[in-house]
Amino acid sequence: MKIVTRIAKMHELSRQLRTGGLTIGFVPTMGYLHDGHLELVRRARSECDTVVVSIFVNPTQFNNREDFEKYPRDEAADKAVLEHAGADVLFMPEASEVYAPGAATTVHVGALGDHLCGPTRPGHFDGVATVVAALLNMVTPDVAVFGEKDWQQLQIVRRMVRDLHLGVRIVGVPTLRDADGLAMSSRNARLGEKERALAPALYRALGAAVAAYRDGEKRSTELCNLARAVIEEIGEFRIDYLELVDGEALAPVETANDGSVVAVAAFLGGVRLIDNVSLARPQMLADASGADIRMRSEDAHYA
Amino acid sequence: MKIVTRIAKMHELSRQLRTGGLTIGFVPTMGYLHDGHLELVRRARSECDTVVVSIFVNPTQFNNREDFEKYPRDEAADKAVLEHAGADVLFMPEASEVYAPGAATTVHVGALGDHLCGPTRPGHFDGVATVVAALLNMVTPDVAVFGEKDWQQLQIVRRMVRDLHLGVRIVGVPTLRDADGLAMSSRNARLGEKERALAPALYRALGAAVAAYRDGEKRSTELCNLARAVIEEIGEFRIDYLELVDGEALAPVETANDGSVVAVAAFLGGVRLIDNVSLARPQMLADASGADIRMRSEDAHYA
Repeated sequence: MKIVTRIAKMHELSRQLRTGGLTIGFVPTMGYLHDGHLELVRRARSECDTVVVSIFVNPTQFNNREDFEKYPRDEAADKAVLEHAGADVLFMPEASEVYAPGAATTVHVGALGDHLCGPTRPGHFDGVATVVAALLNMVTPDVAVFGEKDWQQLQIVRRMVRDLHLGVRIVGVPTLRDADGLAMSSRNARLGEKERALAPALYRALGAAVAAYRDGEKRSTELCNLARAVIEEIGEFRIDYLELVDGEALAPVETANDGSVVAVAAFLGGVRLIDNVSLARPQMLADASGADIRMRSEDAHYA
Repeated sequence: MKIVTRIAKMHELSRQLRTGGLTIGFVPTMGYLHDGHLELVRRARSECDTVVVSIFVNPTQFNNREDFEKYPRDEAADKAVLEHAGADVLFMPEASEVYAPGAATTVHVGALGDHLCGPTRPGHFDGVATVVAALLNMVTPDVAVFGEKDWQQLQIVRRMVRDLHLGVRIVGVPTLRDADGLAMSSRNARLGEKERALAPALYRALGAAVAAYRDGEKRSTELCNLARAVIEEIGEFRIDYLELVDGEALAPVETANDGSVVAVAAFLGGVRLIDNVSLARPQMLADASGADIRMRSEDAHYA
């Protein structure tokens, strides 16, 4: 696995690969890699000749310095894991080069950042859109792979790529989950033992909404109330939002349909967790009671 | 000359050219081409194997529908002129494809849009930065060529390209002028005969500032007053701004130096004209009286 840190070097390498007729699959990450990331790497591998993974903890998408600094990092482990997963290139640009002195450009993706995580994280999605645009320009991939766990991010990236005609195909990969349903996330490492045991309630809550939708309930408020009840029963969460939105426009809808997504963000022991499910996903097996999440192995990466 | 209107076709063509090892020089325009544009085409020709010229009257950079609709257009003449100038590809995307339904992404280049034309044209430079980012992504050139006449635009594009790591080299070309010093512009076609005769006063005004700077005057206010006096003497202009700014940061400076630029925008008979000169340009020959603009042919394209 080749390690590249300079942007000019990455540009040059991408150009060489293209000239050689090789396609490039790109997985942008903030490191502290887990199986969810490796699923993205596998997907990139299956789509392209070459796989580039970036690790860049982007300062501009954190809402404060402390959250940025607390973000978990383990470069040595990440390298080992990527080597083993068969990534061809690990791209680790320096923040000082990504954001040169005097950097003043931001990419803003209209109303898509206004809902869900938007209000709690002002500027976050501008930070995401800007750094993703920059990374895509550095790597110039044919395909870029993102997890559906960050549903809003995925939609914003899709829209940005379409609007700015970036000429890269964006692939979304269903969320990989632990056996108890918790969506894999680098932030899970910050959960205490007790919180870790409670955390899957988020997925059960979403499952409650999906189950009710399948049983014929279409009223968004009712579906959200059902999900909220599952979380509130635990008592330890502070819900940031729990919304039923259009899966592409991300605006709340009154009446649910197969294009809707239920998304939640909640704080648990100081850690902000997010999760979402699409109402159309037939593989969603969690039921409202939460007692019976029948995860078969082939369902393990469905949200 | 090949004419391309579909964005996917442009992407494909650029990819073919690159795979064939050919470099691409790009000249984005809004059409109604004059010799100033052809100078950009010649520059692109001298830098690259292939020259792509785009014509796209971008609706999002006009401040009102009327100004957009009044913008002069002459597709047949433009085609003939570009054919003759040896452009390889004329790219004319449709607005409905450039801005697909639901388009929501804007590129914003911080404080560089706050001065000069910024206050009078709210949103203009976001429109410019966004469409230039999109066009650069469609054409993926090695070099893109812009006129120095739109100095602020050129600086904003440079900054955006650097910040978003677009991997394209931006080349600025000195302003081409008519024999009497008027900066070439598609908008000049909208000037009546009387206004056309008065219009070179803008260039003479800038020349007055340059001459005084060379004679040792460094106070920005004084230099601007000298220039302003030349324009006000005519009586027919309404000055939008006349400022002395840092040539890169575009913020007003109190004390002029070789990195400063004097820029002016003024309305004349309902047409908004802009012009600028760099204080460092040694070829600037206009004098304060305006009586003697000694334009030698090799100076004809200096601002």
